This record gives sequence, C-alpha cells and structure tokens, in this order.
Amino acid sequence: MTTSDFHGVFPYLVSPVDDDGTVRDAVLARLCEDLIAAGVHGLAPLGSTGEFAYLSANQRRRVVSVVVEAAAGRVPVVAGVAATTIADAVGLARDWKRIGCDGVLAMIEAYFPLADDGVYDYFAAIARATDLPVVLYTNPSFQRVDLSLSVIERLSHLDTVRYLKDASVNTGRLLTILDRTEGRLDIFAASAHIPACVMLIGGKGWMAGPACIAPRQSVELYEFCVRGDWTAAMALQRRLWRLNQAFARHNLAACIKGGLELQGYEVGIPLPPQAPLSELGVAEVKAALTGMGAL
Amino acid sequence: MTTSDFHGVFPYLVSPVDDDGTVRDAVLARLCEDLIAAGVHGLAPLGSTGEFAYLSANQRRRVVSVVVEAAAGRVPVVAGVAATTIADAVGLARDWKRIGCDGVLAMIEAYFPLADDGVYDYFAAIARATDLPVVLYTNPSFQRVDLSLSVIERLSHLDTVRYLKDASVNTGRLLTILDRTEGRLDIFAASAHIPACVMLIGGKGWMAGPACIAPRQSVELYEFCVRGDWTAAMALQRRLWRLNQAFARHNLAACIKGGLELQGYEVGIPLPPQAPLSELGVAEVKAALTGMGAL
Amino acid sequence: MTTSDFHGVFPYLVSPVDDDGTVRDAVLARLCEDLIAAGVHGLAPLGSTGEFAYLSANQRRRVVSVVVEAAAGRVPVVAGVAATTIADAVGLARDWKRIGCDGVLAMIEAYFPLADDGVYDYFAAIARATDLPVVLYTNPSFQRVDLSLSVIERLSHLDTVRYLKDASVNTGRLLTILDRTEGRLDIFAASAHIPACVMLIGGKGWMAGPACIAPRQSVELYEFCVRGDWTAAMALQRRLWRLNQAFARHNLAACIKGGLELQGYEVGIPLPPQAPLSELGVAEVKAALTGMGAL
Amino acid sequence: MTTSDFHGVFPYLVSPVDDDGTVRDAVLARLCEDLIAAGVHGLAPLGSTGEFAYLSANQRRRVVSVVVEAAAGRVPVVAGVAATTIADAVGLARDWKRIGCDGVLAMIEAYFPLADDGVYDYFAAIARATDLPVVLYTNPSFQRVDLSLSVIERLSHLDTVRYLKDASVNTGRLLTILDRTEGRLDIFAASAHIPACVMLIGGKGWMAGPACIAPRQSVELYEFCVRGDWTAAMALQRRLWRLNQAFARHNLAACIKGGLELQGYEVGIPLPPQAPLSELGVAEVKAALTGMGAL
Repeated sequence: MTTSDFHGVFPYLVSPVDDDGTVRDAVLARLCEDLIAAGVHGLAPLGSTGEFAYLSANQRRRVVSVVVEAAAGRVPVVAGVAATTIADAVGLARDWKRIGCDGVLAMIEAYFPLADDGVYDYFAAIARATDLPVVLYTNPSFQRVDLSLSVIERLSHLDTVRYLKDASVNTGRLLTILDRTEGRLDIFAASAHIPACVMLIGGKGWMAGPACIAPRQSVELYEFCVRGDWTAAMALQRRLWRLNQAFARHNLAACIKGGLELQGYEVGIPLPPQAPLSELGVAEVKAALTGMGAL
Repeated sequence: MTTSDFHGVFPYLVSPVDDDGTVRDAVLARLCEDLIAAGVHGLAPLGSTGEFAYLSANQRRRVVSVVVEAAAGRVPVVAGVAATTIADAVGLARDWKRIGCDGVLAMIEAYFPLADDGVYDYFAAIARATDLPVVLYTNPSFQRVDLSLSVIERLSHLDTVRYLKDASVNTGRLLTILDRTEGRLDIFAASAHIPACVMLIGGKGWMAGPACIAPRQSVELYEFCVRGDWTAAMALQRRLWRLNQAFARHNLAACIKGGLELQGYEVGIPLPPQAPLSELGVAEVKAALTGMGAL
Repeated sequence: MTTSDFHGVFPYLVSPVDDDGTVRDAVLARLCEDLIAAGVHGLAPLGSTGEFAYLSANQRRRVVSVVVEAAAGRVPVVAGVAATTIADAVGLARDWKRIGCDGVLAMIEAYFPLADDGVYDYFAAIARATDLPVVLYTNPSFQRVDLSLSVIERLSHLDTVRYLKDASVNTGRLLTILDRTEGRLDIFAASAHIPACVMLIGGKGWMAGPACIAPRQSVELYEFCVRGDWTAAMALQRRLWRLNQAFARHNLAACIKGGLELQGYEVGIPLPPQAPLSELGVAEVKAALTGMGAL
Repeated sequence: MTTSDFHGVFPYLVSPVDDDGTVRDAVLARLCEDLIAAGVHGLAPLGSTGEFAYLSANQRRRVVSVVVEAAAGRVPVVAGVAATTIADAVGLARDWKRIGCDGVLAMIEAYFPLADDGVYDYFAAIARATDLPVVLYTNPSFQRVDLSLSVIERLSHLDTVRYLKDASVNTGRLLTILDRTEGRLDIFAASAHIPACVMLIGGKGWMAGPACIAPRQSVELYEFCVRGDWTAAMALQRRLWRLNQAFARHNLAACIKGGLELQGYEVGIPLPPQAPLSELGVAEVKAALTGMGAL
C-alpha cells in the first residue's frame, strides 16, 4: 500500500478505555476489523472523537498500536499528533512512525495565543520529523490557535505536507485553500461540512467521527460522488446528514461512543469529567442510525 | 410576473449617494437596466451591500422607488426591511408594498440581546404586515441577534414566510434548515457560501453583492447548476470564487462600489466613516473581474 | 453652571414611550425633578438604558427637550449622540446643542467593521460639530466597533474631548487610559464597574442606569468616596452592588423601567420586540431596592 | 506555618527549562530565595506564567520539588493542578501533597465544552483528593471552560475549597462572588485586576506573574492596602500598573522570563513554539521596571 494517496472515508476512531485506564484492545480491534470490512479507506485514531486530549501518553501509544496491528496494512492508519510544545509533537510523530503508521494528522494545542510564525514552526517541525505524509488539521471550534491561510500556504510547500482536514463549518474556505495551494494539498472534510459538497469542489474524502457508526453508508456516498452521480449522492446525503446534526449537538466522543454501544461495541463512555451521551442524544443518534439502516 | 416563485440570481444593489446625501437616481437606474439585460432573475435593494444601515429613511425610500421603477415589472424586486422595533419594521414593509416591491428581505437589528420569542415576534409581525412573500435573512457576522433553528422552523409555518437567505459561512446549516422545514422554505445562498454547493443541496439561487459586478457569469453558473452540469458549474465557480474571496476580505459595500466604478458606473464610495476600497482591494477586485471576463 | 466640570452621579434616564409612540413627557419630567431633588449631579438621556437604538428621530428629540426643560439649568444634561454615519452624528450633536444640552455622550453604531481611522474620524467630527464637551462612550458588549486605546489617546488631544465613560467590565483598562491620556480625559464608570473602585483610581463619578432608581444612595456613595471614607463607601457599595448584579442579568432598559414602575413612575416597558422585565427580574430588583432602602 | 491563612503576594514562578528539557534547579531555587527575602507571602509554581501547559509530567514534578525545597517551610507553596481528566487532576493533587506543598491551585483544561455538572465534579474531586486547601482558578481568557457563579457557589461549600483566584478583567465579578459565597471563599486577584481595587473590596492579596520581577514593590503595595493608606497605595499602584500593562500585551511567560533575564536570572525563554519576548516587549518591561526602581 502506498501511503501517498489518501482518499475516501477515514473514520475517526473512538478510544475505549476502562475505568482503571486500560485501553480495551479487543473492542477497538473488532471495530477496526468491521470498518475495514465495510469498505472504509483508512483509519484515524487520536482525532477529536478519539479524545486525544483526554488520554495519557501510554493510552495514546496503546490505541495507536492496536489500530496499526488491526489494520495489518490493508488500509492506511493516520494517527493524531497533538501537543503544546514542538519537542512533544516531534516525539509523537516519531513514535507513530516507529509503530507503523502511514501518516500523521497534525494538530496544535496551545494555552497562550501564538503568532503565525510559531504556528508555522510547530507544523513544519512535525513535517520534518519523519518522512510520513502529514495531514494538517484545522479546527477553529476546539483549538485556541488556528491555521491562517498564509500559514497553510507556506506549509503546503513542504514535501510531506500533503493533505488538509478542515473541521470548521466554512466550506468556502476549503475552495479558497484549494485555489491558493494550487494542487499541493488535497482536502478532506470533517463532520461539520456536507461531504457531498466537499467532494463537488474537489475534495478527496472525509475524516469524521460519524463514519465510525455509518461506514457502509459513508462509503456508498463516497462512491456516488466519485462517479459523479450527484442525484443519488444527495438523496443519500440527506439521510446521513441527520447523524451529523446529532453529532454537532452533543459531545463528539459521547455521541460516537453512544452510537457504537447501540451497535453492540462495548466502547464505554467518554473519560470523566466528560458526560456520557444524554438520553436525548441517544434518541437522536438512534433515530438517525435507524433512518439510514445502520441499526 | 408571479411573486411567489423567486429563484436564480438576485444581485444586492449598491446605494449610490452623493456627498450631500442625494441618491444618484440615474446611475442606479442604469445599473438595474444592465443587470436585467444580463439576465438576472431579481433585484435586491437595501441589503448589507446596499448599506441599509447607513441610509436615512428618505434615502432608503428613494433607492427602493428608483429600483421598482427601473425594474418595471420585468423581474421581482425584493427590498430590505431592517429595524430595531416592530413598529418601524412593519412601517417599512408596508412602504415597500405601497411602492410596488414584490417581496421583502426581513432582517433584524438589535442593540440589546433578544430572546427567541422576541425574534419570532419581530419577523412574524413583518410577515403579517403585508401579503408580500418574506425572505428571512440570517447573518450572524453582522447582526447582534441571529435566527435560531427553532425560530426559523416556527416562522416557516407562516404563509408568507417562503424563503431564507443565509449569510453565514455554514453551508451545512442550510441543509439542516431544509431538513427541518420540509419544503416550506426555499433557500438562497449569500456570497460567503459556494453557490454551486448550495444549488447541489437544493437551493433556489443566491442573493449576493458580487452578482452586481459579474451578472452574466453568475447567471451562467446558475444555469449550469439547474441543468445538473456540475463539471461546467465547478469550472466556472472556481473563477467566480476569487471575487467572493476579495469580497470577504474587504468592506462589502466598498468592494462592490469599487468594482462598479471600474466598470464605469459612478456609484461613488461608501458613506463615511466607512472607507473606500483600499488599493489592495481595487487590485484584487480588478484581477478577479479580469480573470472571469467581467472587465 | 459651567459645563466644563462634569462629576458625580449621572443617572441614565429611561425613555418612557406610549404604545402609539408618544413620549410620556410628564412622567419623564417628574423623574428628572425627583432625581435632581435627590442630589444627582447631571442627567443623561439617550444612553443604552434610554433605548436610544430603539427610538425614532422624533422620539429622541422629544426626550432630550423634555429633559433639558426639566433640568432648567440646575444640573448639566449630557445627551447621547449615536449614528452609523458621520453626517447623522454631526446633525444630532448640533440638534442637542440647539436644544440646550450641556454636553454630548458620543457613541458609534456600525454594521460593517471599521478600522481605527474611521472610528477616529467619526468621533472627531462630533467633537468639531459644536463647542459642547464630549464624553466618549466605549461599550464593547453592545457595540460592533470599539474605541482602541490608541484612538482614545488621539481623540484626547482634541479640545472638547474631555471625558470618557466606559461600559466594559475591565476596570484595569480605565487605569491604563488615565495613564495614557495624562490628565486630558476624566473618567466615568458605568454600571458594570464597581463605582468605589473607579473613584479610588481617580474617576470623577459614574453614568449609569441604576442611579435612576437609587439616586440618594448613589449620591451618598459618591460623597463617601470623595471624602476618602473608603470603609463607609465599601459598606454601602456592597448593598448597592446587588442592584448592579440584577442590572447585568437582565435587559438594561427593562430592568430600570421595571424598577421605576415599582417606585410609582409610569414609564411602561421597553419598546417591542424587547421583552418587559421578567418575574425573576422584578423580584431581584425589588429585593435589591428594598435592601438599600430605595423601595 | 498554618496553611489555612493564605494572604498577601504570591508570585507566579516561571519554569526555567534548558533546551534539552532539564529544569534549571539552581536558577529557580535562587529566585525563590530572593523572593522570600523580598517579603513575598507565598510561592505559586505551575500557574499560567509557569507554563504548566507546556511542561511534561517530569518537568512539572521537578519544578514543584525545587520550589518546596527552596521555600523550606518559610512561606506556603501553592502548586498548580491542571488536567483534562479527573483521574489526572487527582493524581497531581496527591503528588503535590506528597512532595510537601501547602495548597493547590486548581485549574481545568478541556477540549470539548463541558456542562456545569462536569466542571463541579472535576474541582470537587480535587478538593476531596487531599486535605490541602484549594484555590479555585478561573481564567476565561485562556481556558475553554469557565467556572460559572453557581459552580463557584456550590464548590465553596466544600471544606477545603477556601480561596478563589480570578484571572478575568472583571473586578465586579469578584464582588459578586464575595457576595454570593458569604465568607466561605477568600479572593485573590490576578495581574489583569488592579490589586489595590481588589484589596479595597475585601480581597486577601494577589497571585500574579509581575510579582516575580517586582516583589518588594508588590509587598509594599500590599502593606499600604492592609493599613488602609489608599492614597499611598494608589500612588504606588500607578507605577506598578505599567508593568501589568506590558504583561497584558505580551505572552505572560515570555514577559516575566524576559524581565528576570534583565534582572540577572538565567531563566531562558518560553518553550517553543512560543516566541521569546519581542524587542518592544523588552523595552516596555525595562521601562516599567526602571520606573519603579526594580532594575
């Protein structure tokens, strides 16, 4: 498998963790196996949905190891790198390479505001730490520091910076990024975008939590888009969108963990003090999954 | 012409005003004439681009009168209603009906925060003030009070509330609104959305400032979308998007007035203390217009 | 009375308006009379509490005329000037001078963002429109455009720009402004600051809605501060602060109109679609007023 | 020394770290020694200024150990506890107790939004993890989750929750908290408040970065306030405020590390990708320190 052509549906994996902090290896491995069987094009541990910000260093390492082993080279694994310091981020990128990942999803955490040069330095250091392809992750809702258009443009000139995954709600910004990076970056949507729209403007797929609980439908939607059958795509997209709406209204991890529990995966609840999915949330997720034949 | 089927491209008109406050009737009338000749499907005075917030009551009335007279029933005129009090909004809606408008674009202004019930009351009062179809206008960037999903849903049950024009950057929200209003509302995009995407998900067109300076290209894009020729649509959309990018970076009114001046319309500059389009802005608008053959 | 030494307690007056839009002259005049009898040092019509943003041009003019006549030169009247265009702001400043005001409270309204130069031009134009002393009004919570420190510093060099009234919650910013304007500006607090603290750092008084319903207590607090009796000041301040807390939790105009109704002034409710003070709000205001002997 | 009466000036200590990640023990110990000699009333490692969010678990532990050893029981040490999960926060609180701290400063980190109940659970778990007194730290500027008034009120009923340190700019909120917790919480200011104002309303002191580089002046200011000599306090406060102004304009850690370097402490620069203090910043800090005789 070549790591240099990421495309299609990459579910953001949840991180199932016991009360005592142990990662539930078997549950996670079974989920990976089932997702691959459903046709997903890659696996993305340690994204927002994967509660990367709530895991210890050991838990993060364990999650990535389990996923790489479960994937067994059948689909690429793109694991999240997120830190406040360059030193920690570089360490994580090297760890994921060593464990066998095919790419890294690079996120920045910050406590103090950071100027563009600092943001550039952080991501450039990750890009130089290994030869893995890098997916830039931009998420203005949950991160204190965002990637400006000019930083993205600068980063796109680095060899290994090949992809961008955007978690804003601003679909137009993606077209602007495509315009300004002139083919140097491929774009992935997140759950707050309408995937069909991102595909229409030239996106390569999506990396998103909901694909974890609706993998077959997500892959089907992707294929309609690739074939240019926009009528069929939109008909399916409308049904799938209800899941994204539920996802947007609740804690992302709680929502996907809750949906997986409904589907029989014992992934548990988000790490405290995060709350489990509320009753309303369970009802909404259940209705959305039922409506698309995923439950 | 039936007023009950708004669709296609509605340019937001600028409001050309002399230093002494006189509306430049002839310039505005010629612009309307040329836009209709270019194929636009309607005219929208007193939107954001039309600097409604900067015009006196007399200037607003004059602008609407000139546009209605210039349109001469060939295309619908949908004029902006914006106020802080219900009494003023109702007065404006009745005035626009009396002058001969075919619809109203209903916006809310506020100084203090306003709860959902107050927002509902305001828009419902406009809807009941005349029998004109109402376009709800939601603009979280420039307005202190936004229309929540539940208020939109409630308003959609009123007979004359027929359309919604969204000026956020959140294209997914439009799909959510379509889902929740089940056919009772038709959706128009604003300049911050990618028009082709909004058409893909079921939109009826767009109401936007840039259509004022690229009317033929906007109409052509609309027609590609209606025919389902998404490949041609996206090719044209990419060129048109540069204009929207410039529009997003500068004062909207300054940008469109600046573009129209480049095209030979003496529309002047925004009302002080707003600044004219900067040199950088002029260069960007010029490049975008030239790139799409509109200059 | 010299207009050049504003100090002490300036209640922001409400604007009592009938359902048909008529200003209730007699109610407003009686309120002014009673406030002067209670010892207030000035009167401030058309502030936020005065719902300036919700009044028509005629209503604004009527309110100012009634207050000027009621004050009869006994205390200075500082009326609000607020507009989006320079032309309108200059017109208002001249109107208030003509009617007999002793100063203007200059606020800016905006729909589009405005750069510092535009903000400066707007306020400088007001300062040059008359020879009345100008109180700059900075209110980041309710206004789309704020006065930056450098704009305040530039404006402080204009002869008639003599005062600043800050409605942020940031008391430290006031000390910064005092430091940077080196005696050219006198500072007034608004209701979100602790008046005793603003007096401690060198403020001249406060312009605030709560002083409308607790004038005697406000004047007493002012006098403790002026005498440097900080122990007595803080004891009284603590009781008064409960009113400011209620004020912060509810619509300002609703809160003061609700409090005045409790005290027997028939000032009515805020202009629709603003809601009247809620039951909870009435209870909180009642408790605060009772606790300080103002009911 | 009793740990149950924290009051006065607690400098937030910087965390001097070598390029290879080693904590500079000797530099940190000398700084602690000098601060105690200058009269400070306590030491606070791992606050915002201490870059807690940028340190590894080992670095955090080392910093706290060095400070506890340096303090040698002469002044209380209150170390920062900050985590996203309850499990990690509880672990840190127990570690600091074991190492010999006299209190913990409890902060919350979050990636996803968190409802009030989750916030309460987090802080309550810290309070129950040890018998050390807890200082609640509320910082709306840098933290994604804030402590609401009702959560603060609920927490104040726990035995060990004894203090609150507020890093907002909203001094009025402190008076509200004092009012609502009725003596159960003592209040400390942070650098964004005017310390003299917080003392006036009943505060017990301040925990702040600037006290690290102006300890003698801070202690002098504190003593003027305690004696009720407000005139002297404000005269000194005005000079000290310039340092807080510089502090607010630059990265906090960069600012204090830069100031300490000027004073001869080799504390280095903030951890990358944070930038060192800019030339402008150095000039401002230098001017402020010189102006108050601290350089």
